[in-house]
Amino acid sequence: MKATVLRLGHRFERDRRVSTHLALTARAFGADGIVFDARDERVRESVKRISEGWGGGFSVEFVSSWRKAVAGFAGDVIHLTMYGLDLDEALPQIRKSRKDKLVIVGGKKVPSDVYRMATYNVSVGHQPHSEVAALAVFLDRLFEGKSIRREFKGAKMRIIPQERGKKMVRQPPTFSPEPSSRRRSRT
Amino acid sequence: MKATVLRLGHRFERDRRVSTHLALTARAFGADGIVFDARDERVRESVKRISEGWGGGFSVEFVSSWRKAVAGFAGDVIHLTMYGLDLDEALPQIRKSRKDKLVIVGGKKVPSDVYRMATYNVSVGHQPHSEVAALAVFLDRLFEGKSIRREFKGAKMRIIPQERGKKMVRQPPTFSPEPSSRRRSRT
Repeated sequence: MKATVLRLGHRFERDRRVSTHLALTARAFGADGIVFDARDERVRESVKRISEGWGGGFSVEFVSSWRKAVAGFAGDVIHLTMYGLDLDEALPQIRKSRKDKLVIVGGKKVPSDVYRMATYNVSVGHQPHSEVAALAVFLDRLFEGKSIRREFKGAKMRIIPQERGKKMVRQPPTFSPEPSSRRRSRT
Repeated sequence: MKATVLRLGHRFERDRRVSTHLALTARAFGADGIVFDARDERVRESVKRISEGWGGGFSVEFVSSWRKAVAGFAGDVIHLTMYGLDLDEALPQIRKSRKDKLVIVGGKKVPSDVYRMATYNVSVGHQPHSEVAALAVFLDRLFEGKSIRREFKGAKMRIIPQERGKKMVRQPPTFSPEPSSRRRSRT
């Protein structure tokens, strides 16, 4: 099962940081990519820089019509909203289907047809908080707490967990080795 | 067990929104308050407005010396950092103690003595993402998924979960009723 995030209502002037947080959260908690309904290459560049260093194949895309993207999605569409059903109630059903997930997170005002187009409207607590928090907890629970433990392929750096302090190792890029016969022939 | 959040490195110019997200996330996921190492009344005002409407007794405070605040805290100090121990490994130990928790979240650069002063340095995934996401997932797991289900006392409004659309009810403020004898005596 794959998960992709759709971020609605990104405002170029105001949302650069929060949208970058959202994209990195999507990546760290197991989504394969994020889609925005407004073009912002600054967000894409920030996320790309991190993906190049830390690995994984996370994508950042822009669509001109989010409605088409939602209508054309072959899988379950989950809209995170404080007005939706309790996460505890909805999650068993959502997990039962092995279909891919499109997880919609909005800003302050979300067009009302999102509620109708979504397969599930789900609430991570019925309190005002943060779309970053809602996305993180939703993905953490969707993947049963395992998504933060997975490997990111092709990472150039990696952290060695420490009780105190910081330890990061740089890893050589993994090339497919040349066949030994060819290497030998060069000597 | 109570949890309080300490946010280090708040920058007045840049961090208003992210710090507000952090404070609201702390509130929604079960912390009793948040402490900042820099004064920003705009963040306090935003959070206060929400607490007045949605209930609960969440506090926003500022300290001039975070080191004193940490040193004087009677409980476990948990520093969330991508360099720390795996959450899965650290959490059983953290939960075993019923002491209050001070959860430290930093910005980009955290003074190195935080790592020494913390009882635990804990990582919510060893990937760069968002302090809002890290805090949300940490608190969600610390309180075993129950914190988003609790009641907020004195709330003036409340959401009725819906499959589609929005339903919010305004509640009359709850006064302690006068004893019926006194009320009768007035008629």
